[in-house]
Amino acid sequence: MSQSCEDRKYAPVGVFDSGVGGLTVAREIMRQLPMERMVYFGDTARVPYGSKSRETIIRYSRQIIHFLQGKGVKAIVVACNTASAFALEELRPELDIPIIGVVKPGAKVAAETTKNGRIGVIGTEGTVGSQIYTKTIREHKPDAEVIGKACPLFVPLVEEGWLKDPITVEVAQRYLASFQASGIDTLIMGCTHYPLLRSTLRGILGEDVNLVNPAYETAQGLKALLSEYCLENDGGKRELSQYQFYVSDAAEKFKNFANSILPCEIEEAQLIHIEE
Amino acid sequence: MSQSCEDRKYAPVGVFDSGVGGLTVAREIMRQLPMERMVYFGDTARVPYGSKSRETIIRYSRQIIHFLQGKGVKAIVVACNTASAFALEELRPELDIPIIGVVKPGAKVAAETTKNGRIGVIGTEGTVGSQIYTKTIREHKPDAEVIGKACPLFVPLVEEGWLKDPITVEVAQRYLASFQASGIDTLIMGCTHYPLLRSTLRGILGEDVNLVNPAYETAQGLKALLSEYCLENDGGKRELSQYQFYVSDAAEKFKNFANSILPCEIEEAQLIHIEE
Repeated sequence: MSQSCEDRKYAPVGVFDSGVGGLTVAREIMRQLPMERMVYFGDTARVPYGSKSRETIIRYSRQIIHFLQGKGVKAIVVACNTASAFALEELRPELDIPIIGVVKPGAKVAAETTKNGRIGVIGTEGTVGSQIYTKTIREHKPDAEVIGKACPLFVPLVEEGWLKDPITVEVAQRYLASFQASGIDTLIMGCTHYPLLRSTLRGILGEDVNLVNPAYETAQGLKALLSEYCLENDGGKRELSQYQFYVSDAAEKFKNFANSILPCEIEEAQLIHIEE
Repeated sequence: MSQSCEDRKYAPVGVFDSGVGGLTVAREIMRQLPMERMVYFGDTARVPYGSKSRETIIRYSRQIIHFLQGKGVKAIVVACNTASAFALEELRPELDIPIIGVVKPGAKVAAETTKNGRIGVIGTEGTVGSQIYTKTIREHKPDAEVIGKACPLFVPLVEEGWLKDPITVEVAQRYLASFQASGIDTLIMGCTHYPLLRSTLRGILGEDVNLVNPAYETAQGLKALLSEYCLENDGGKRELSQYQFYVSDAAEKFKNFANSILPCEIEEAQLIHIEE
């Protein structure tokens, strides 16, 4: 690495997702690590990832990581459950900077906080089919019972803006029915869009089920990771731009969505052709 | 063109879509033009197209058309409303073979059959936002009143398999409410997935609204186009494989979906990397 150790701590963190969902992770990083700079990439030209194959998700993630490395990032956050499930461990050996996904932090806190050992996981077809949450939870709690349910309509319902709509409630009731019978005390919202449905999920499951938001835990995990590598930004060099956003399509739409959920106003999302 | 005119009529027709939706068009071609051979490409690695920008859809369509030309097709069917809306007229001048989309055939029959001149169009955000149906209908019937409505949840509901589900009925009631008030007598199902929802749409709109399936009209239009160019297959050279399917991801899932809706069993969908 050409940068000195002193310089590297001022480098941005690279964050990526298939589209806008990862902004819930970016939001937590902004809140919990306010000194950190960030380069965010949303793959809006190829979104969604949740219904696509492992091989394709690895290929797309590799392209994005190369792009972020070109931007001089000091660490990478895979802010997408499907990419964390399929690509993270595959790509880690190719990197000389630390990388963290959303699955491990979410799985760890669920394993540590469940009382009855019964944990539900909702996510995309890819994430749930990969069984990665089950595997990771059992590394921390071998006797945990993990029940997964793919909820493919949640992302389009969020993107339609029907967050608390009666139709969304009905769809959620259908998807969550199996959890109510099985007596889980913890539910992992295993897709970055889902925290936007928190109050709908809470209304169906009641107050006794703990809803785990991996975005929150991932920001905590990133903090620990940067500390471990002596990469924490101490707030110097404030003249550098703090946040940069890149997308592979529909930059204006992305910007509008980002400005509806982020704690700060973003001025621009830049369009790039990621496959080239 | 290197092939003789006599040989060219035995060449396959190229058909493409963002994924499985275009199979409703492929099905009509198989039924109405049983002598024709076909190469189908479904862009399952980048599906859906409906929420993406014009520029991206043109870029993707150009890549696919190059692929199909490499397979020696004699004509191209853009079996996707969004690609027909955004890319067809842009790419036509680059081609030396005839090309047809799904929009014009559907718009023409709607303009010709409406009695009260009020036509509804449902489709993706891209198709409806492009206003292409309005423009094309008015070429045939300048005083037509065309009311468009984007229905972004229909594709995920179809892909979830909830074709006649009460939730789908409720979503459809919401989307179609404005049409019921406006007194349309014709509704164009302007996305290739939507004919699979025909009975749900029929149940809400009643028998008095004519549902136009552009897939049917497109197969008719293809027949006329091949005849015009003297490219109709007379059924000779039966030793050549009749149907070939290619996808950019998840070939097995595609094959299963295809076999659930096509009139013949397909043995294989071959995976290719379209962006390379």
